Amino acid sequence: MATFGLLDYEQASPEVRAVYDDIMAVRGTDFVGNFWKALAHDPAALRRTWEAVKDVMRPGALDPLTKELLYLAVSATNQCGYCIASHTAAARKAGMTEAMFAEVMAVVGMANATNRLAAGYQVEIDERFRNQP
Amino acid sequence: MATFGLLDYEQASPEVRAVYDDIMAVRGTDFVGNFWKALAHDPAALRRTWEAVKDVMRPGALDPLTKELLYLAVSATNQCGYCIASHTAAARKAGMTEAMFAEVMAVVGMANATNRLAAGYQVEIDERFRNQP
Amino acid sequence: MATFGLLDYEQASPEVRAVYDDIMAVRGTDFVGNFWKALAHDPAALRRTWEAVKDVMRPGALDPLTKELLYLAVSATNQCGYCIASHTAAARKAGMTEAMFAEVMAVVGMANATNRLAAGYQVEIDERFRNQP
Amino acid sequence: MATFGLLDYEQASPEVRAVYDDIMAVRGTDFVGNFWKALAHDPAALRRTWEAVKDVMRPGALDPLTKELLYLAVSATNQCGYCIASHTAAARKAGMTEAMFAEVMAVVGMANATNRLAAGYQVEIDERFRNQP
Amino acid sequence: MATFGLLDYEQASPEVRAVYDDIMAVRGTDFVGNFWKALAHDPAALRRTWEAVKDVMRPGALDPLTKELLYLAVSATNQCGYCIASHTAAARKAGMTEAMFAEVMAVVGMANATNRLAAGYQVEIDERFRNQP
Amino acid sequence: MATFGLLDYEQASPEVRAVYDDIMAVRGTDFVGNFWKALAHDPAALRRTWEAVKDVMRPGALDPLTKELLYLAVSATNQCGYCIASHTAAARKAGMTEAMFAEVMAVVGMANATNRLAAGYQVEIDERFRNQP
Repeated sequence: MATFGLLDYEQASPEVRAVYDDIMAVRGTDFVGNFWKALAHDPAALRRTWEAVKDVMRPGALDPLTKELLYLAVSATNQCGYCIASHTAAARKAGMTEAMFAEVMAVVGMANATNRLAAGYQVEIDERFRNQP
Repeated sequence: MATFGLLDYEQASPEVRAVYDDIMAVRGTDFVGNFWKALAHDPAALRRTWEAVKDVMRPGALDPLTKELLYLAVSATNQCGYCIASHTAAARKAGMTEAMFAEVMAVVGMANATNRLAAGYQVEIDERFRNQP
Repeated sequence: MATFGLLDYEQASPEVRAVYDDIMAVRGTDFVGNFWKALAHDPAALRRTWEAVKDVMRPGALDPLTKELLYLAVSATNQCGYCIASHTAAARKAGMTEAMFAEVMAVVGMANATNRLAAGYQVEIDERFRNQP
Repeated sequence: MATFGLLDYEQASPEVRAVYDDIMAVRGTDFVGNFWKALAHDPAALRRTWEAVKDVMRPGALDPLTKELLYLAVSATNQCGYCIASHTAAARKAGMTEAMFAEVMAVVGMANATNRLAAGYQVEIDERFRNQP
Repeated sequence: MATFGLLDYEQASPEVRAVYDDIMAVRGTDFVGNFWKALAHDPAALRRTWEAVKDVMRPGALDPLTKELLYLAVSATNQCGYCIASHTAAARKAGMTEAMFAEVMAVVGMANATNRLAAGYQVEIDERFRNQP
Repeated sequence: MATFGLLDYEQASPEVRAVYDDIMAVRGTDFVGNFWKALAHDPAALRRTWEAVKDVMRPGALDPLTKELLYLAVSATNQCGYCIASHTAAARKAGMTEAMFAEVMAVVGMANATNRLAAGYQVEIDERFRNQP
């Protein structure tokens, strides 16, 4: 039922194939998700988005699993069905256990609740939270 | 400029003081934030919320720092000023470095972007993301 | 610090004054809030918005207090500072007690949490919720 | 297509069954919704969430119907499909008529519009809305 | 699977038919979308919403295509499935090419990212952005 | 009150200065906004974000003014104070008149309302909106 066709490897231009190849190489898989196949209608956006995702998600001060958990927490907050499904899978591949998943969801639920309590009660920011080094 | 008065320890009922005491004991501090002092107008909500926060944020399958980073990611996604300020402080106390903070923000920005691309392009969930164990 | 000037009654055109007059008459007050004074830069939007608000908020199957509580719940969910402040005031004028306010916030917090849990756990809609009369 | 299995009563541990039993007893029904069956993978979250929902939704300064309408208003604002379906059903059970539903939606639509107008026009909070008792 | 029946022209009251007729006349089509057929359960909301949409979307300082692109950008930001589908169709009818669609999505993704970076980094508004004419 | 210091040109590393120089050159100004000065704490994010913004906002199938209006519409929907202020200024510089601003806001308000009505009424996507070329 997708409104936009999904661009398969066979139909893709060399420019798009190069991105698909890099996605599969970096992720050590032979699979390219529908997100990329939809975005491929705009090859420049495909490349820009993939390069940014690759850059942002690579190990740094935070390990890949932690980054996937953060991605999942944002996706659940925004209630993005596709992103929840794909990043739950990605987080599992990166090592997320069921217990970790449950704890991510518990924090997401709690934070979404207290965010609204803070706003609704019009809580002023404490002085000590303003003057961070 | 808070619409709701903040309930200081001195003015508080024994019931509210007990929660304040527990917050300070669990966190190893002599400080109670404005969020709790505003919520204290509803002692039942104060206790329920604090017990849930304490339960959710304690070490489990995820360590306290990771949980604080998740809290911060949700708060930034929701653009809750109070929560961003207080949980940036809490995450730093739990060990977040500036490099970690920057990586959290990078993931948050990226996820918020791709969440909308997935929705806007009406991307269908891949079959393999549906049949998770 | 408003970017857009606020249009006071004295400066306003007859068209805008007529809306201001109606706001004050319907609400039984001599006060017009900044929201309307900002929107007045677009007289057609001012009239359209006010007529819709007047229509939607008048007593019907739901009483005015319940409608104000709903408005406040939405505003807290969206974390709109202006709207939370103005509709807290409006709800109080319509009879909201502090106990009611606290219960509204408790429901808002809870619903914002469970909304994300339902999304994050990818919960399918129960068959019986689909076939409502 | 649920990614997470739904935990039926028969498969559930005594701990989970106790929560299911309480849900059915409090609601006077023999039905437990998919939300709870998904959350049951984390028995502690199941219990904590149910106890909080039970506590928040019980009659107080606001009656159960008003609370359900607020829940529905938040769920529609967040566009949570599961929550809209389940809380529309719950609100009907609590006495919501079609006319009430239509008025809830009208307020939700209006509030979501004016929230953005207030933000977009950068409206400053009126002095009188700041100094509430 | 709609919870609310869709009110077809044949079943509709003269009041609802008058709105349907106007929708078809203004849009030069013999088609009325499900959105209107659902909203028709509340004839007053149907009329009020249609009159507002007609008023807001008519050519003015902005042309109809630009308005449809804005509608689509908001709908993608809110991740409203129905609205994305219907306004993608409407924008195409108004002249949106695939290249335009891709650029709208690119801006939507970018803005959703930088909105969170600005919030997360707690960026203060520049003095020069405050004093607009 | 910024929690994060703003990195001025004088303090900045050659890497950061190169980005600042490019921002000023592309925009034809001697001004660098606080957003960039905060993000500069993470030079890689600064460069990646600026390159993406430059790429996305350059004239293409859509002109720069239309792109700024879309940016503003998203920012108002997300209620991001900094972004609304800075992109209102940017849109004005790109040619947005007060009448255009008012029409953008009118569409933003309307779309935010109807997005929730579509969700709340659980409107199914029309068949004809599914099968787009």
